[in-house]
Amino acid sequence: MSTDTTIVPPEAQALHDRSIVVDGLQTSLWGRPIFEEMRAGGLTAVNVSTVLWENFREGIDYVSQWKRHLRENADILRPVKTVADIHAAKAENKTGIIIGWQNTSPLEDKLDYVEIFKDLGVGIMQLTYNTQNYSGAGYLEEHDSGLTGFGREVLGEMARVGVLCDLSHVGDKTSADAIDYAKGPVCISHVLPRALHDVKRNKPDHLFTACAQKGGLIGISLFAPGLAAGNDATVEDVLDAMEHVINLVGEDHVGIGTDFSLDRPRPSDWLLWANRDKGTARKLTEFGSVKINKPAGIRRMTDMPNLTARMLARGWSETTITKLLGGNWLRVLDAAWTPQG
Amino acid sequence: MSTDTTIVPPEAQALHDRSIVVDGLQTSLWGRPIFEEMRAGGLTAVNVSTVLWENFREGIDYVSQWKRHLRENADILRPVKTVADIHAAKAENKTGIIIGWQNTSPLEDKLDYVEIFKDLGVGIMQLTYNTQNYSGAGYLEEHDSGLTGFGREVLGEMARVGVLCDLSHVGDKTSADAIDYAKGPVCISHVLPRALHDVKRNKPDHLFTACAQKGGLIGISLFAPGLAAGNDATVEDVLDAMEHVINLVGEDHVGIGTDFSLDRPRPSDWLLWANRDKGTARKLTEFGSVKINKPAGIRRMTDMPNLTARMLARGWSETTITKLLGGNWLRVLDAAWTPQG
Repeated sequence: MSTDTTIVPPEAQALHDRSIVVDGLQTSLWGRPIFEEMRAGGLTAVNVSTVLWENFREGIDYVSQWKRHLRENADILRPVKTVADIHAAKAENKTGIIIGWQNTSPLEDKLDYVEIFKDLGVGIMQLTYNTQNYSGAGYLEEHDSGLTGFGREVLGEMARVGVLCDLSHVGDKTSADAIDYAKGPVCISHVLPRALHDVKRNKPDHLFTACAQKGGLIGISLFAPGLAAGNDATVEDVLDAMEHVINLVGEDHVGIGTDFSLDRPRPSDWLLWANRDKGTARKLTEFGSVKINKPAGIRRMTDMPNLTARMLARGWSETTITKLLGGNWLRVLDAAWTPQG
Repeated sequence: MSTDTTIVPPEAQALHDRSIVVDGLQTSLWGRPIFEEMRAGGLTAVNVSTVLWENFREGIDYVSQWKRHLRENADILRPVKTVADIHAAKAENKTGIIIGWQNTSPLEDKLDYVEIFKDLGVGIMQLTYNTQNYSGAGYLEEHDSGLTGFGREVLGEMARVGVLCDLSHVGDKTSADAIDYAKGPVCISHVLPRALHDVKRNKPDHLFTACAQKGGLIGISLFAPGLAAGNDATVEDVLDAMEHVINLVGEDHVGIGTDFSLDRPRPSDWLLWANRDKGTARKLTEFGSVKINKPAGIRRMTDMPNLTARMLARGWSETTITKLLGGNWLRVLDAAWTPQG
């Protein structure tokens, strides 16, 4: 299933195979083929984060759909509520599923629902998707409200019950406010540096530094439009981006968030919905209608061992690579999932 | 706070104090005074079951309200999800809270929501309140539909995820169907025998027998209108009812479900709502407007030790009394809460 004629040396494959590999975000077309590819790519845990504009009821139904997936694919998947579940997934040769959101829209106007969804297994919540919500602004708003009063309370509830806050699609000012307000670590699960390619969806260095200073994590994504080379990018461009952030914040605060959206037809009703504010309002970007390649050498989950191989080829140590593949995610998830309240 | 001049002998008080006492159902006015009385009455666990006509969203909010109660009263309450939690409550001198429902109305038309609510801590669900719902008929319907096709699936989900089904307010035919269809034990959490007082809310002996044969439990209630003496009833009438059921099904299938609805003003908006089908449709009974006394000698939770005293006075053995106070509930809850799926 590998999409490039990349040859992964045996020692790289072996390192990949024994590592805990955490993918900080995917929106693939959930089903048996994707779950089998998670196994084939050696993914120990994945943040499955397709919630974009869902309301409360739809957020509940997302949990129920995942319960069904987990039940019907229990031979290769297991639910993740704690870091111990990720270690168990590794031991059982399964992929651990972290139920995540890209928007706090399912909370609607109820703070209480943070705990309701935490109880149901939602472990990561992005504060806003691309636009304004009750908590703050997405990166596509012209004016960034900053973190709202309600947003502060949402962050407080997340900390109290143990949910990791994600800031990937969140506006710069709201992101800065949230990092500043948060008592514990937050993450930017799937992002690329604006310093290397100046587009709004990428983030400036100061936010990476601030995130790391709070003990958080920056997950480097494979989103080609965020790389200067665009659709011509390769896995080396991804590692250049990773290296940029490592040089900025150190190797303890960087991981991977592939943003794989595999097997989704383009265009599709889902993408058109994703690309409108709140699913049905204004059209937001041109991405919905164009084909976006992942960088050559890392086009599918089955190419993940090649990422490990290219890290080794850069002379990075095993210790460093193990942290980047998943070790840092484990530390940050453990800290965030320990309730403060 | 005891409401009668009953004197509880020290040996009865001691037996009460060392026993695990489970109250199969209450609808008291939740708040600190009631929680303190749970402690004063020596209640180890209570099924708090005020959900009568709530829809899905209101069912979620009921959970959130209880999370708040549990948080704010953590010095004397603890949540119960397993029987081990009830033992822990006993060891910690706290009262364990089993979140329960008197209607499956919060499921609305979604089978998936059985598991959602189980995850949120709902451990007991009465199949129907007084009238028809998607699953079957309440005892006040003129014609009893019996267990519906959807009701069978609801029972199946309860068994799969581990929720105890309650049949107290359920119509006779639907009750019989449910007991027949259920693979494991069900309960009739708060009920009195029709053989001793022929009113619709009471249940016929054959349902007690059938319930016990499935390993289930009959909780004897303190609902005065269900006793022949009505408002003149005493604790002895309650024990007569209990003895009637014990003679029928044996001492392993009987417990207590007080139906205490303490500190609720009469009349009140809540009672008027409770007494209309689905909260706002036809008026169902005359109970809503009349004062109902609990039997003399057992009017409040603080009188619970007197129940133990009167059992001892009947010459019942300690072993028997321990089962009736809570031991039987522990066995049935443990069986029902062990998921089958």
